[in-house]
Amino acid sequence: VFGGIVHRAGEENRLSVSATIEPPYLLFLGDESRLPAAKTAAGIKQWRPERCAGQLRLSSSAVDLGVPDMSIPLAAQRGVRTLILGTVNPGGSIPESWVNTIIQALEAGLDVASGMHQKLSDIPAIREAAQRTGRRLFDVRHTQQRFATGTGEKRSGLRLLTVGTDCIQGKKYTALALEQEMRRHGFRADFRATGQTGILITGAGVAIDAVVADFIAGAAEWLSPVNDADHWDIIEGQGSLFHPAYAGVTLGLIHGSQPDALVMCHDPLRQNLLGLNFPVPDLLACIAANQAAARLTNPSCKVIGVSINSSQIPPADIEPIVKEIEDRTGLPCCDPLRHGVKKFLPAVQAITHGTSAAAAQPR
Amino acid sequence: VFGGIVHRAGEENRLSVSATIEPPYLLFLGDESRLPAAKTAAGIKQWRPERCAGQLRLSSSAVDLGVPDMSIPLAAQRGVRTLILGTVNPGGSIPESWVNTIIQALEAGLDVASGMHQKLSDIPAIREAAQRTGRRLFDVRHTQQRFATGTGEKRSGLRLLTVGTDCIQGKKYTALALEQEMRRHGFRADFRATGQTGILITGAGVAIDAVVADFIAGAAEWLSPVNDADHWDIIEGQGSLFHPAYAGVTLGLIHGSQPDALVMCHDPLRQNLLGLNFPVPDLLACIAANQAAARLTNPSCKVIGVSINSSQIPPADIEPIVKEIEDRTGLPCCDPLRHGVKKFLPAVQAITHGTSAAAAQPR
Repeated sequence: VFGGIVHRAGEENRLSVSATIEPPYLLFLGDESRLPAAKTAAGIKQWRPERCAGQLRLSSSAVDLGVPDMSIPLAAQRGVRTLILGTVNPGGSIPESWVNTIIQALEAGLDVASGMHQKLSDIPAIREAAQRTGRRLFDVRHTQQRFATGTGEKRSGLRLLTVGTDCIQGKKYTALALEQEMRRHGFRADFRATGQTGILITGAGVAIDAVVADFIAGAAEWLSPVNDADHWDIIEGQGSLFHPAYAGVTLGLIHGSQPDALVMCHDPLRQNLLGLNFPVPDLLACIAANQAAARLTNPSCKVIGVSINSSQIPPADIEPIVKEIEDRTGLPCCDPLRHGVKKFLPAVQAITHGTSAAAAQPR
Repeated sequence: VFGGIVHRAGEENRLSVSATIEPPYLLFLGDESRLPAAKTAAGIKQWRPERCAGQLRLSSSAVDLGVPDMSIPLAAQRGVRTLILGTVNPGGSIPESWVNTIIQALEAGLDVASGMHQKLSDIPAIREAAQRTGRRLFDVRHTQQRFATGTGEKRSGLRLLTVGTDCIQGKKYTALALEQEMRRHGFRADFRATGQTGILITGAGVAIDAVVADFIAGAAEWLSPVNDADHWDIIEGQGSLFHPAYAGVTLGLIHGSQPDALVMCHDPLRQNLLGLNFPVPDLLACIAANQAAARLTNPSCKVIGVSINSSQIPPADIEPIVKEIEDRTGLPCCDPLRHGVKKFLPAVQAITHGTSAAAAQPR
């Protein structure tokens, strides 16, 4: 159970405070020396630096995120609340050599959070230590949370969802960049995590692909509850409507999110869906299909831009590709990592004002 | 665990014999006097009469399905293998007054199968009796089965999936009627159940809405495995692409099923989706959307007909409505309960022959 709570039909439709992972964090890096494998910890450091009190490295060759090295006793003394397992490995299992460190953290009064496939709570010594100390284990990839089924009823507040032509294209990064840029420009915006890394970054959310199928849309409704008319939830998308394995997750997330705005994420160089013998769908067809799907629960939903991953594109080719996509789609296009996401703000602003203006009308 | 087995990625992609509920059945009717509440038992009797050895009624006013009344000791003596809980109630809970009967069945050597929300295995006395006697409990609504994620790879064999404009419109009935009619006409056809009633009727299947979201399409691929080129799986559809709660389940089921043919189920009198303030989608738009979705994994998929529920339509109005739908869609339309499903067979035959002819071509 993520956060130890169980939601049932009819319960209040809000993120429960008891389900959040509490900062400050100690980022556990083990002896991982490759930065890509430390992406969870690096993501927390990038997007929520204020949550990161320190890092715990088991060897001097481990990745250094530029936060203070800290032992567990020191972390406990400085008020750290949670040890975050900050690395990933291909099997998603928790190395045996970590078990003692995890137990030491629990005994020092810290909670422990993991995005691994293997559950903390499935390792007997860790489970027993958590029970003995009364500390919480967050296995964020394995929600056993229960939700109501979706209702489709319109909720107040504004929502932006990132969608894509495939998996692993920048949907989470784009959403986090939008949250940051919108806050800088005075918008009220909160990132809503739907995958394990996003949950560990922000301390809350739902691993939407781990929810029982009947409740995908209901979980998405729960994730972005009723809010003020000018408040934006920036929801991390998952999968793709044209992915033969995951499109059901994507569609339920679209329907439950009731987005006012969609940002389409795309990798211009990718020919086939990752790991499959399926072509990446046509960008225009994908934009049309996502917008049509979203309009079931929010008839005014619009795709407002295209976010590309240009990391593998030769620098001289990037601007021509951006221009080609803008000409073809009629939408602003940018790479959040290279250009930021300012190009998307005029559309966000227009939607915000449209809604505010409408809300100000006498009924 | 449905059937006590756990499937993991890489295991053989076939319905496991060990997961099937074994006939003959004893149909348990409790003291239920209303036929609609005994729909599970009545469905088994209608579609699989050869599986039904007898019925067990706790009072003389209980529904009589026209099979022999049979006590548990007599059923055991006659070789009955499974007691099926054959009624439904609004809360989906197992009445306390049934517990002794269920334990008696286990002690007599029968397995017990239930489609209730409340699990047999969550009732301590029942769980203990099953462990003590080595008998199996089938909680078919609660699969804990694990599947691989979908691959989208084309499998040999032919598949027909029933889809719909809403939930509860006849998708299961239409599929069962097609199986029966196709077998009568010499087709090799097997119904594939995706909901608890269908699973209890045929003894196997997957409660697709209970699968973890990431595996919807993978579970559908598992449900209709590789088969001979002229063999039809007739797959029970779920939900609707235009349902704000369940569309994700529907889309994953469509993609994983790779249907060659779709039959669209529709209730011409229904204005709003059941229990929701959402209009039933336009029939033509729904046909187009389902066909487009199916073509992701089977580019030759066609909607071949419209199956209507005419039970609430005044008799004089039925034929004009059928004709209007046929004119509007260009597809054969019928009510399986009233007309049978013969109208769909020419299209099924054409697809069967088209495929056989293609398969006979040298490569």
